[in-house]
Amino acid sequence: MKPTGPLPPEFAHQTGVLHIAGRSAEDWVTEAGDTPLFVYDLAIVEARIARFRAAMPAIDLHYAIKANPHPGLLGAIGGLVDGLDVASAGELRAAIGVKPAAAISFAGPGKRDDELALAIGAGATLNVESEGEAARALAIGERLEIVPRLAIRVNPDVELRGSGMKMGGRPSPFGVDAVRAAALVRTVRAGGADWRGFHIYAGSQALDAGAIVETQAATLALAARLADEAGAVPPLVNLGGGFGVPYFAGDRPLAVEAVGAALGEALAQRPEVLAGSRFAIELGRWLVAEAGVYLTRIVDRKESQGETFLVVDGGLNHQLAASGNFGTVVRRNYPLALASRMGAGADETVSVVGPLCTPLDRLGDRVALPHAAAGDLVAIFLAGAYGASASPAAFLGHPPAAELLADHC
Amino acid sequence: MKPTGPLPPEFAHQTGVLHIAGRSAEDWVTEAGDTPLFVYDLAIVEARIARFRAAMPAIDLHYAIKANPHPGLLGAIGGLVDGLDVASAGELRAAIGVKPAAAISFAGPGKRDDELALAIGAGATLNVESEGEAARALAIGERLEIVPRLAIRVNPDVELRGSGMKMGGRPSPFGVDAVRAAALVRTVRAGGADWRGFHIYAGSQALDAGAIVETQAATLALAARLADEAGAVPPLVNLGGGFGVPYFAGDRPLAVEAVGAALGEALAQRPEVLAGSRFAIELGRWLVAEAGVYLTRIVDRKESQGETFLVVDGGLNHQLAASGNFGTVVRRNYPLALASRMGAGADETVSVVGPLCTPLDRLGDRVALPHAAAGDLVAIFLAGAYGASASPAAFLGHPPAAELLADHC
Repeated sequence: MKPTGPLPPEFAHQTGVLHIAGRSAEDWVTEAGDTPLFVYDLAIVEARIARFRAAMPAIDLHYAIKANPHPGLLGAIGGLVDGLDVASAGELRAAIGVKPAAAISFAGPGKRDDELALAIGAGATLNVESEGEAARALAIGERLEIVPRLAIRVNPDVELRGSGMKMGGRPSPFGVDAVRAAALVRTVRAGGADWRGFHIYAGSQALDAGAIVETQAATLALAARLADEAGAVPPLVNLGGGFGVPYFAGDRPLAVEAVGAALGEALAQRPEVLAGSRFAIELGRWLVAEAGVYLTRIVDRKESQGETFLVVDGGLNHQLAASGNFGTVVRRNYPLALASRMGAGADETVSVVGPLCTPLDRLGDRVALPHAAAGDLVAIFLAGAYGASASPAAFLGHPPAAELLADHC
Repeated sequence: MKPTGPLPPEFAHQTGVLHIAGRSAEDWVTEAGDTPLFVYDLAIVEARIARFRAAMPAIDLHYAIKANPHPGLLGAIGGLVDGLDVASAGELRAAIGVKPAAAISFAGPGKRDDELALAIGAGATLNVESEGEAARALAIGERLEIVPRLAIRVNPDVELRGSGMKMGGRPSPFGVDAVRAAALVRTVRAGGADWRGFHIYAGSQALDAGAIVETQAATLALAARLADEAGAVPPLVNLGGGFGVPYFAGDRPLAVEAVGAALGEALAQRPEVLAGSRFAIELGRWLVAEAGVYLTRIVDRKESQGETFLVVDGGLNHQLAASGNFGTVVRRNYPLALASRMGAGADETVSVVGPLCTPLDRLGDRVALPHAAAGDLVAIFLAGAYGASASPAAFLGHPPAAELLADHC
């Protein structure tokens, strides 16, 4: 038997039939018309946003669309956050419908001229990733006769300890090295751009508040040093994100309040050069991951050489990360449950596999579950981020999963 | 510096500008209208099919659509092979337009009732994966008043040594254990089905001819034993596939002729019970992988802490496997080249990264290349199988890659 991750707090204490936003799992299937499907509970996202606001009242909150670009969810979140962070022209177009361009920033190491022109034309902020990109943005601004809004993305010389995905402290395609950042600020200001500040992202999916506190303090110090060097006050410092969620057995939730308290103190004592700056934190996964549930129905129950398999009708074509094939070295089990038997004790050890004709399509590896049969629904949790949009939907020609928003309206 | 895999023979000796099917890489970009794009050279697929036919003249050749379902490619291949193997209702619908239903077989561990009904209604063969699925197929056949064509997929008690993806010799969601297969043959025959034989798939992506020969011999022996036990002659024995292609440094091409020679001998001496059987080999990757090239343009060239990055406009959203995030434990470099400098010596060590805002998006990790600049095209080879259709195309909102077929017409 291998352990599964912890259920999000909104689901951990349910017994009997799984309810999402007050409606039973089968109710959601009826609304979707078929399995498999994703359900996103907006109330859970709202609770995360409220928790962030309470913990960090002075900090702007940005939503990183890449975590979940579902239009309904994006529209709702857009009204609750201060900014939207996008990573492609497609995401930029989606964001423009939701938020004023001045509240949108665009990061990404490979922005093409057409993407730069779209952003500059719309008035969004470009998080510039290199000297070459800055030069292209300035030239495009000149050609369009629009003053480009440019922030400098910095490859920090610190990394986020314990993060699932390190993006600082090493050679990186993201941003310019800290030693060259102040010079680039001077270049873009001299080039006539509206300089918007710094974007500094050191890593993601960290659960250790101490590590985040430490990284934020180092990021703040770096921003102050760069502002001094550049001789200019950054209007906004995007401190990055990195707030993780507990996916796997043994993971503990991030103590966001501890992060907020430490950041509040650090900001109160910040160097004079940053006195007039605003600060933002950019979150994707932490806001939406726990709000999503993936529901898939058992098609077959079978035995092979002493192992029991529950074959479900959805798999890595919709939930690649849950199969352990996206950014993980060792496959571990996401939290999952039988939707009809929440809170029930385990009767047996089974493997939950998807319908794809590949051994990679495994959603639960030797997990302990109550007895299940064909027709039962399996719920995979933590499906709200990097699920539907981050999976190879066309692989093997199955239909896409439905995506439903539970918005309490 | 880390090594890259070997270029396919059709490209390995080119110098200067990369040509695909006689046209330059930039020509293909012009036809596509933009980068990034996949080009599939049908002549290379035809060469692989011809090589197979010469090596194994008595064996049916099936194409496993999952490797590349591009409609033009599928249509062309359909006319050159004896059967199409599908793994979903979507693939079945695509195959029905290309090949008579009697030449189509449908495998997959989680077939739903609607998928079974579609296959039975069309007259395709179902590779039955469990006793439960067999019972459902028989019931649906009765309801539709159509005799279902059923083959038994067997989880073999042998594995394919050295295969990248083992699918036999262990507990498996695929097929029924060998010890129960003969009983299931009797059940489906007694239930009125048209029993089509066995489907036995022991693994994939093997480069060692000796291992494939050994597995095929064991598979043949297993089929004979099961036929004896079942008291019936299988019309067709699908011996599986498993023919690999060299992706990585040190990989050597599979000696297909050695496999064919050994299989020919084994078949000449096969047990009497299989005297009236046909035999098929099911190939996907080996037929199409080397025919595909992914072309992506350098958007930026940048330095960070002593490392040089070439940022290209396509990445894991189109070519997940090349980024090392699909079915691989240790990331290794696919073969790649500068499309304008084929055969040129290396000037420097660089990393080739895609445009996605994630460190996972790396197509070449510290590879040796001639000097390259923004605007140059990078070619990633081995892009014909498990590329466009097996990647998270929606991730981060970039457009899909174009897919072009070079068909010499």
